[in-house]
Amino acid sequence: MATGSGAFPDMPSIAGIRAGIASAGIKKAGHRDLVVFELGERSQVAAVFTRNVFCAAPVKVARDHLMAGAPRYLLINTGNANAGTGEHGLVAANACCEALAHEAGVSAQQVLPYSTGVIGEPLPVERIGAALGAALADLASDHWQQAATGIMTTDTRPKGATRTLQINGQSVTINGIVKGSGMICPNMATMLVFIATDAAIEQAALAAMLRKGADLSFNRITVDSDTSTNDACTMVATGEGAVVAGDDLEAFATVLDDLMLELAQAVIRDGEGATKFVAIEVADAQSEEEALKIAYSVAHSPLVKTALSASDANWGRVLMAIGKAGVDLDVALTTLTINGVLIAQYGERAPGYSEEAGSRAMSEEDIVIRITLGRGDQAATVWTSDLSHEYVTINAEYRT
Amino acid sequence: MATGSGAFPDMPSIAGIRAGIASAGIKKAGHRDLVVFELGERSQVAAVFTRNVFCAAPVKVARDHLMAGAPRYLLINTGNANAGTGEHGLVAANACCEALAHEAGVSAQQVLPYSTGVIGEPLPVERIGAALGAALADLASDHWQQAATGIMTTDTRPKGATRTLQINGQSVTINGIVKGSGMICPNMATMLVFIATDAAIEQAALAAMLRKGADLSFNRITVDSDTSTNDACTMVATGEGAVVAGDDLEAFATVLDDLMLELAQAVIRDGEGATKFVAIEVADAQSEEEALKIAYSVAHSPLVKTALSASDANWGRVLMAIGKAGVDLDVALTTLTINGVLIAQYGERAPGYSEEAGSRAMSEEDIVIRITLGRGDQAATVWTSDLSHEYVTINAEYRT
Repeated sequence: MATGSGAFPDMPSIAGIRAGIASAGIKKAGHRDLVVFELGERSQVAAVFTRNVFCAAPVKVARDHLMAGAPRYLLINTGNANAGTGEHGLVAANACCEALAHEAGVSAQQVLPYSTGVIGEPLPVERIGAALGAALADLASDHWQQAATGIMTTDTRPKGATRTLQINGQSVTINGIVKGSGMICPNMATMLVFIATDAAIEQAALAAMLRKGADLSFNRITVDSDTSTNDACTMVATGEGAVVAGDDLEAFATVLDDLMLELAQAVIRDGEGATKFVAIEVADAQSEEEALKIAYSVAHSPLVKTALSASDANWGRVLMAIGKAGVDLDVALTTLTINGVLIAQYGERAPGYSEEAGSRAMSEEDIVIRITLGRGDQAATVWTSDLSHEYVTINAEYRT
Repeated sequence: MATGSGAFPDMPSIAGIRAGIASAGIKKAGHRDLVVFELGERSQVAAVFTRNVFCAAPVKVARDHLMAGAPRYLLINTGNANAGTGEHGLVAANACCEALAHEAGVSAQQVLPYSTGVIGEPLPVERIGAALGAALADLASDHWQQAATGIMTTDTRPKGATRTLQINGQSVTINGIVKGSGMICPNMATMLVFIATDAAIEQAALAAMLRKGADLSFNRITVDSDTSTNDACTMVATGEGAVVAGDDLEAFATVLDDLMLELAQAVIRDGEGATKFVAIEVADAQSEEEALKIAYSVAHSPLVKTALSASDANWGRVLMAIGKAGVDLDVALTTLTINGVLIAQYGERAPGYSEEAGSRAMSEEDIVIRITLGRGDQAATVWTSDLSHEYVTINAEYRT
């Protein structure tokens, strides 16, 4: 299941980056499970990675290789996360980088590896190595949708977004693709994000923009409160187009933030078993931190999420979830609305509220739960999906 | 669903406390939804209550009445939590206390009220008032099982435990009953616990023992990470038996702790949709706090809980949940065993591990997940159940 239309956008080519897709037969024979991005020589690359201490081998290797500078290839496999694989996993990830480097005539440090799939199984290095030639032969600048499809695991559909903007009279493009629909907080079966622009941006500025954008998008979504061992969000500025620097960075960052939010919301719309797309807005808080604490308490509550799944206006559960967040708020100043319907205030049901109005609001596919605390001027929003039978089915049967 | 045999123990009478059960027709006609405990004059009472800031009206009233001292009656209704009911809820809870006080010839402050059920609906005070006479007429000292049944909501069976010990040659009894199976952390549809002993114990000592015992039992269990608006754990020492003071308090507390742990585990065994009873033991931590952080991270993970439900030895998810807990641990020193089978060490699958051994361990009804961190000598255990289709069904359809 999924919410929204999920149509894949028409994504233009970006000078300086090409994608090739191939079948390595990692989990299923014939499945297109290998994606290679080739980056032009002028590319600057930045990335943010999972904070899970059991981070996967490719995360460690990609971080090291990124520090060494000058990446020319991104190598992504699905079907196997190469996580929980200890020293052997590091050896395997490095071996894949070396194989690609050998085929492509670069150094192994110029390859950043990414893996997603089952944790704890040895990575089939030879099968990946054998498919690299096919992936390189497939490289093309218009393969964004194929790449978005090639990185999918439990996703029901490829997810991408694109923007163009004008910088000093030149047109600049930003493309992004994302995979991930469970272990999202921000994630695993793993969330992988790849963003590219033809703009020329210094690495430090690129890294700063990417981190800030991720904080407001991928770090504001939750399907199931679980954080992947493999999450990575990588951005390439190929440097083939307009120079973006100084005051222009802000205009670029605004558009980038918007694209990242669209990608993050696409993950929630394709959340495992999702039948609802839910925004939880907390306003009038004393701090952004306290607003987030309450928003996540509601977003993570299994009782709220099952009520959403059933379109049941069981607003008492929302009050419960607000109340357990550990914020010393004044119940009498707190208000709750769902899709504009005022449900609770002064610690009880609003006088004009009817069960009928609540049920109507809850029956929508897109739900906005708005909570005002009446104790400050800070706000935050997080996005989540519901907890359905299908979520249990998907995750009970993931390895079977 | 539920785990374990769940047989109700043979509970002896305790001098100084009697229970009466009646039907008030709060939610369903004919359902025995009202329980009254009558406490003897010498009784000392202590209680711990939910920390949810949206705590229910009866919690506020019971706390106030307990402070005023000398409780003589506990009044419990199911079918309606009288939570999310604001000022009206306080008026309703007080009205119920007054009605019982009037019938029984005590003051309203001598009645402690407890409610459990749906949040946000007005409490039907008149129906409760009309049934009080029947509850009082039913008072008897051997009604523990009836009382345990009368306080149930989504519970599948009554839950009780009993202990006797010798203090200075005198036999002392402790009985306890509990209800609760969802919104447990430690809880709602609501967890209510009532414990009684015939021992004579000073109120301050009773309160200290109860708080400590609750911390090691009811505050160590989680079904769904949700914390009830109505939780309360109340203990009565009727003072009709042996005096327990000084050095004897420790012996008594040890037995009490044991009884409370049995009751807490009974809640998990009857957790909503539970097909597994899971202990998560974390050892060799630097502090108890860090051990609990990791234990709860595993216990709350929907991906771990769905794998448990499917008896799938998807141990990668356990590593993921350990890794996201925010503890800066050394992956290479961490070990994971499930029911004694060594699964992971040095950040990867243990050499001798086989999928077959893992599956066999996971197919048990009782599961012990043991995690050692190799960084200290502190430990903690929490108990939880799995996340099954039935959990979703129960909570999607709770109000229908």
